[in-house]
Amino acid sequence: MIDTKTTADVLSQALPYIQRFRGKVVVVKYGGNAMSDEMLSAQFAEDVVLMHSVGIKPIIVHGGGPQITELMARLGKTTEFRDGHRVTDAESLDITRMVLVGKVSRDIVTLINRHGPLAVGVSGEDAGLLLATARHPELGFVGDVEAVNPTIIERLLAEDLIPVVSSIGTDEEGQAYNINADTVAGALAAALDAEKVVYLSDVEGLLEDVTDPTTLISRVTAIELEQLVSAGIVGTGMIPKVAACVHAVRHGVHSAHMINGTTPHVLLLEIFTDSGMGTMVTSGELS
Amino acid sequence: MIDTKTTADVLSQALPYIQRFRGKVVVVKYGGNAMSDEMLSAQFAEDVVLMHSVGIKPIIVHGGGPQITELMARLGKTTEFRDGHRVTDAESLDITRMVLVGKVSRDIVTLINRHGPLAVGVSGEDAGLLLATARHPELGFVGDVEAVNPTIIERLLAEDLIPVVSSIGTDEEGQAYNINADTVAGALAAALDAEKVVYLSDVEGLLEDVTDPTTLISRVTAIELEQLVSAGIVGTGMIPKVAACVHAVRHGVHSAHMINGTTPHVLLLEIFTDSGMGTMVTSGELS
Amino acid sequence: MIDTKTTADVLSQALPYIQRFRGKVVVVKYGGNAMSDEMLSAQFAEDVVLMHSVGIKPIIVHGGGPQITELMARLGKTTEFRDGHRVTDAESLDITRMVLVGKVSRDIVTLINRHGPLAVGVSGEDAGLLLATARHPELGFVGDVEAVNPTIIERLLAEDLIPVVSSIGTDEEGQAYNINADTVAGALAAALDAEKVVYLSDVEGLLEDVTDPTTLISRVTAIELEQLVSAGIVGTGMIPKVAACVHAVRHGVHSAHMINGTTPHVLLLEIFTDSGMGTMVTSGELS
Amino acid sequence: MIDTKTTADVLSQALPYIQRFRGKVVVVKYGGNAMSDEMLSAQFAEDVVLMHSVGIKPIIVHGGGPQITELMARLGKTTEFRDGHRVTDAESLDITRMVLVGKVSRDIVTLINRHGPLAVGVSGEDAGLLLATARHPELGFVGDVEAVNPTIIERLLAEDLIPVVSSIGTDEEGQAYNINADTVAGALAAALDAEKVVYLSDVEGLLEDVTDPTTLISRVTAIELEQLVSAGIVGTGMIPKVAACVHAVRHGVHSAHMINGTTPHVLLLEIFTDSGMGTMVTSGELS
Amino acid sequence: MIDTKTTADVLSQALPYIQRFRGKVVVVKYGGNAMSDEMLSAQFAEDVVLMHSVGIKPIIVHGGGPQITELMARLGKTTEFRDGHRVTDAESLDITRMVLVGKVSRDIVTLINRHGPLAVGVSGEDAGLLLATARHPELGFVGDVEAVNPTIIERLLAEDLIPVVSSIGTDEEGQAYNINADTVAGALAAALDAEKVVYLSDVEGLLEDVTDPTTLISRVTAIELEQLVSAGIVGTGMIPKVAACVHAVRHGVHSAHMINGTTPHVLLLEIFTDSGMGTMVTSGELS
Amino acid sequence: MIDTKTTADVLSQALPYIQRFRGKVVVVKYGGNAMSDEMLSAQFAEDVVLMHSVGIKPIIVHGGGPQITELMARLGKTTEFRDGHRVTDAESLDITRMVLVGKVSRDIVTLINRHGPLAVGVSGEDAGLLLATARHPELGFVGDVEAVNPTIIERLLAEDLIPVVSSIGTDEEGQAYNINADTVAGALAAALDAEKVVYLSDVEGLLEDVTDPTTLISRVTAIELEQLVSAGIVGTGMIPKVAACVHAVRHGVHSAHMINGTTPHVLLLEIFTDSGMGTMVTSGELS
Repeated sequence: MIDTKTTADVLSQALPYIQRFRGKVVVVKYGGNAMSDEMLSAQFAEDVVLMHSVGIKPIIVHGGGPQITELMARLGKTTEFRDGHRVTDAESLDITRMVLVGKVSRDIVTLINRHGPLAVGVSGEDAGLLLATARHPELGFVGDVEAVNPTIIERLLAEDLIPVVSSIGTDEEGQAYNINADTVAGALAAALDAEKVVYLSDVEGLLEDVTDPTTLISRVTAIELEQLVSAGIVGTGMIPKVAACVHAVRHGVHSAHMINGTTPHVLLLEIFTDSGMGTMVTSGELS
Repeated sequence: MIDTKTTADVLSQALPYIQRFRGKVVVVKYGGNAMSDEMLSAQFAEDVVLMHSVGIKPIIVHGGGPQITELMARLGKTTEFRDGHRVTDAESLDITRMVLVGKVSRDIVTLINRHGPLAVGVSGEDAGLLLATARHPELGFVGDVEAVNPTIIERLLAEDLIPVVSSIGTDEEGQAYNINADTVAGALAAALDAEKVVYLSDVEGLLEDVTDPTTLISRVTAIELEQLVSAGIVGTGMIPKVAACVHAVRHGVHSAHMINGTTPHVLLLEIFTDSGMGTMVTSGELS
Repeated sequence: MIDTKTTADVLSQALPYIQRFRGKVVVVKYGGNAMSDEMLSAQFAEDVVLMHSVGIKPIIVHGGGPQITELMARLGKTTEFRDGHRVTDAESLDITRMVLVGKVSRDIVTLINRHGPLAVGVSGEDAGLLLATARHPELGFVGDVEAVNPTIIERLLAEDLIPVVSSIGTDEEGQAYNINADTVAGALAAALDAEKVVYLSDVEGLLEDVTDPTTLISRVTAIELEQLVSAGIVGTGMIPKVAACVHAVRHGVHSAHMINGTTPHVLLLEIFTDSGMGTMVTSGELS
Repeated sequence: MIDTKTTADVLSQALPYIQRFRGKVVVVKYGGNAMSDEMLSAQFAEDVVLMHSVGIKPIIVHGGGPQITELMARLGKTTEFRDGHRVTDAESLDITRMVLVGKVSRDIVTLINRHGPLAVGVSGEDAGLLLATARHPELGFVGDVEAVNPTIIERLLAEDLIPVVSSIGTDEEGQAYNINADTVAGALAAALDAEKVVYLSDVEGLLEDVTDPTTLISRVTAIELEQLVSAGIVGTGMIPKVAACVHAVRHGVHSAHMINGTTPHVLLLEIFTDSGMGTMVTSGELS
Repeated sequence: MIDTKTTADVLSQALPYIQRFRGKVVVVKYGGNAMSDEMLSAQFAEDVVLMHSVGIKPIIVHGGGPQITELMARLGKTTEFRDGHRVTDAESLDITRMVLVGKVSRDIVTLINRHGPLAVGVSGEDAGLLLATARHPELGFVGDVEAVNPTIIERLLAEDLIPVVSSIGTDEEGQAYNINADTVAGALAAALDAEKVVYLSDVEGLLEDVTDPTTLISRVTAIELEQLVSAGIVGTGMIPKVAACVHAVRHGVHSAHMINGTTPHVLLLEIFTDSGMGTMVTSGELS
Repeated sequence: MIDTKTTADVLSQALPYIQRFRGKVVVVKYGGNAMSDEMLSAQFAEDVVLMHSVGIKPIIVHGGGPQITELMARLGKTTEFRDGHRVTDAESLDITRMVLVGKVSRDIVTLINRHGPLAVGVSGEDAGLLLATARHPELGFVGDVEAVNPTIIERLLAEDLIPVVSSIGTDEEGQAYNINADTVAGALAAALDAEKVVYLSDVEGLLEDVTDPTTLISRVTAIELEQLVSAGIVGTGMIPKVAACVHAVRHGVHSAHMINGTTPHVLLLEIFTDSGMGTMVTSGELS
């Protein structure tokens, strides 16, 4: 039983944040264990609906690497990675699209829609959302974001819906490409003038020493972050996420966050409390 | 320091209420010690702004009996009461208007506007809001609510403003009358199809035995309430409040509440928690 | 080289149809060879865009039986059919969703979007579009349409987009079901007050004698159609389509059409010429 | 009995003015004898309603010095003036607000609303209308206009209501100040791009020789007016009014007028006749 | 020189009428000497613009009998009348259209547009305004009003324009007909829910004794008017006008008026004074 | 009987044009034999309605020289031409207006309205559409276009109506003038940011050798056209048309066309086929 004072304190503390974020876009990159654990994913959906209910406009971007690898395996395809990218031939692309658009996105939509008919799955191919270019001939249909046409997302937001975006894009000729979901989240946040882009992963945030959770970096500017990368302190796996954070805050997004998706209701805690969670990246122009 | 689990619990519990009350009108009758204590009144204003920030449309109705009596005394006027009503001659009416519209309303507007330019003082005379008739010749300019023209309030709500209403009305000829603020709150709630009307006073709610706070009646229907009145269990001072509650729930208001304004943040606790506060009155049609 | 007279004749003949269908909804069930042949599918997409360009609001509903069977086979699942329905366990449902939403829908969206960012893939799960109930316990996750909430489709149409609908629905608990696409097309047409619902298949239309293409039935009323079914003249495979046609025209859809998707530009010919194509079903109330 | 020719002449002459002022804002500073005489004040209200009925958007700004002084006296407070300003301590401010917002504004609202539910009392505190700063520490809560946020007024005008503004402002912390009503009228006119600001007082207008009514200055430019002030021709009591006129016409207001509020229907005569009334001030840029 | 009191009186008296008629439609049938006299027609145009400037929505319907006769004569056509109707063959119809639409309407538009780009000539043929049927085979292209489609007029009014309507209609096949302008004015007034329809002619109004101007009937109900017709008191030439008045007030028009167009500014005097002018017809339901 | 392939080809070819011209304004100057031949004029009206039905916003501008000359003759007026302009005294102007506004425009409106209540006759005098100045004192009321106020046309287009414009303008004093219809069409196209202005005449287009139809110039830039004029290759009668084409394309109109109005459905062929018809003039800036 929570006493009235504590209840009132929590609600009162949340006030300025609810006021400040009302009507603002928050892009959430959803992935990792938060996605595979049933209770965590249910809580995630609940948090998204809560954000929505107080007037925030959440957009979910999801990955699905492990699920792709699994279906590839079942279909007898071996996955080759180069520089952290999955080499993607036509058949792999088909499998990728099926998993992302036809399975992972569906599961997220279902979780959210238990609270009401709010979520809509969107592929980056729909209505020209993500214009892609090939990253490198050797990688096949692995793409970079060339441009974002956010109209379809804006229309869904205007109708108070919650878009769940799969990171597939198309080039000018309509050829589809698989794009890194971290990158897509940052590009969408920038194109939509988002207030925040939030990355859920399996770690607390950025650590000065990956082996020591007490070395969490709470706040960091884009420049400092680039210096950490140069100094080799940021692990390779984090590079796309970190680059996406820097891109976002340099294109008008107020802050980017790397938080631990395995903490229950971490999204609420990050958004509605004074202390926040994980690592916050800002452009640093006012720091 | 509140732990993350408690924080998340409170926020999660508030979710369905925020969702449910979004866009709904809540009329709050404000008075008693909650109005004269500086900290309580600051918390009241904060709560009103929080409600507003999550899309609820609060309307404040205020009384001001003690303040009227005080100015009357300073001006050498003695106050005569009949049947609980202040006998009001032309000069008393002038004083009443000055105190309610020119002082009490102003103070509430000021408290709310510390959080932003949200509150607007409105007298029942403005734009024909409250049409009044004389209650009894012997009472002078004491009026009953004949009709409510809620247009001005609807316009202010449409502009996301918070009306602070003084309980003065006018008759067809433009003569002003002082009206009981409890009654005005109920009539406004009915006219505006409010979700709730909430009365803040100095007691926990309706007690079966006024001397025993453990006899609080948590839920009661309009019919039961009328039976309690007939049985003499409701004190005389509570009659107008109780009548206003019954009137409101019988004219489409979902529930009426009598709560203790001296509990810090009681408004938040009533609205955003499962347990609620004080006494809730419903029409009883679905009980 | 087409002479100017012929050109003018064709354009002039199309005039009353363009005028009449402007702003009207036309639901097209797309399937069969028209979907697997590259040239036919490109022409199909072109026709849909033409319809759209003259103010018609097309909605595509697609099936994907052969593609589902193929992926099932590759994943070592055998498909069992009962009464023409694919028995669908949880894994089969996952595969079905991946194929329909993640592959077939994607391919159609891509074809249309070569002409501009118009198409948007929608699953019946999105924003509560299709409410499903289990058809029969033995069939697993095979569903019937319980209700249609067409809001998401109406919103996309209002934005001049072309919805491509996958025939997956969800029940009240959010459990997904595979639904017959013919049925979905008819139900959507009825829910959206469509002008027409058009079924593309591999035959000319309804034949009195399936072995003799000259016995094509050009026009038929709902009642006559039911008599043909009773008389055993309609083949089993056509039953859901025929039932969907009858349902649609009895719920306000002006006409239902069964046409041959392998005739180039058959959609244009059906819609914009006096003679029409295939079999037209009407409610018969004015025949 | 007025003959038809005269009637037609008056109506015809009014035509170009009605056409020209339709939809324009006219700020009227109301005060002096026009406010205390019952017939004059009824005619004033009638004129305001007439202006409103032909599409002009009137805003009333009122003072109330004598009424404040009177209540101060009754409450045993003595009024001290320095440089023409009433030294205002916290209690005086309370009294000032009560008189202006709770009495004078109420009386004007009542007079106008006899013609229909049109007038709404507004304090400069409402919705952040008037941002004030202290004029001088020795004067207490006497304020200057720091900025005008005309949103609340614009909203009321958009709803075809007539705002009656009391000249109280608040500073950033929410502390209230009493502001000169002449100054407020000019600042509001400037902030609202008014067509005219009209000052009603007890004299014909600006006289070259105050003792000789035949020396009325009919038209004067802002520069000429400043020269008259420098030359000592304008009396001290007129300085705030004259400064407000100059401020208004230099900030986009087309003309400022000083007219005699004791002439019956002077507002109509000023606005709807070729000859106008009193003294008209223009920016002089086109003179 | 008109004194200020008279000016104020006229303006004040006009107030309730301006308020009452704002946004209301007034159909004016314009004809007779008021149309041929240069000064009267200029004053008529001025009055129409004044009405418009105070928010009334005037519609002018005009005839042109004498001008038609004149052009007929110049072109060597003789005019035959039967029962007061001009027998109209195809050539006469062409001449009628040229005179009404190409000359009379043009002249009225020109007069009004000297005050601003307000007037727009409209023929009853435009956008299907007047659906006509032949009155009698022997009369040729003389039509009756079968139905009014007021959409084009409503659109022009919505854009604050002043329609000037020529009384030509078309039947279902597009054949044009000449229709009595008095009848058209009444039918338009009824179809547009007009406040008033006003007929300008060369007499004071309806006289009990046509030879005695002092026998003017100021007010009359529809029933009384029909009795006057039965009693033979209304002259033959007045019958269509009288029938149109009765039709209008029985279909929702508040009042119909027959006034003397040769009185300067008679339109203003009728509309904006207590005494009114000429004869007023009401439905009599409240008399 | 046209085969399905040809039908599909024509419809498919029309697709990009329908898409491209949707919502665009196309001004059509209508005149010559296309206007006097009954079948051609019916086809013209049909084409205009078809263009309208696919979302193009057509505006018709018409001349009427021969019809004016004819009525002049019948009325015993002789027509004098100077430099190709009809010398126009007051009576000639009256006749011109009657013919253009009261006859030619009426006939076009009638033809179009057989397909529905779409067309509305507009004179350049209506709502200040065409501001004119006298061309030369000796020519009388022959005017040039001084300015275009396209508001009335924009309003009619916004209501999905088809304006039929007669080429009469007025000067500042309201005096009417007859203006060359070719010039008016070009000026309207420029003022309305039209996509195209199309001139229908009795020849194929611009010929290098007027006696040899095989020397048709299919495409020409404004500069090249001016050179052709300088070189004396363009006949005198074509000069106003050619000048209007050059004016239009230099003021934002995408292309101007001179086509043969005697080719059946030439408007459809020009607009909806790859090959187009006649001569197309462009600004040449991108050629």
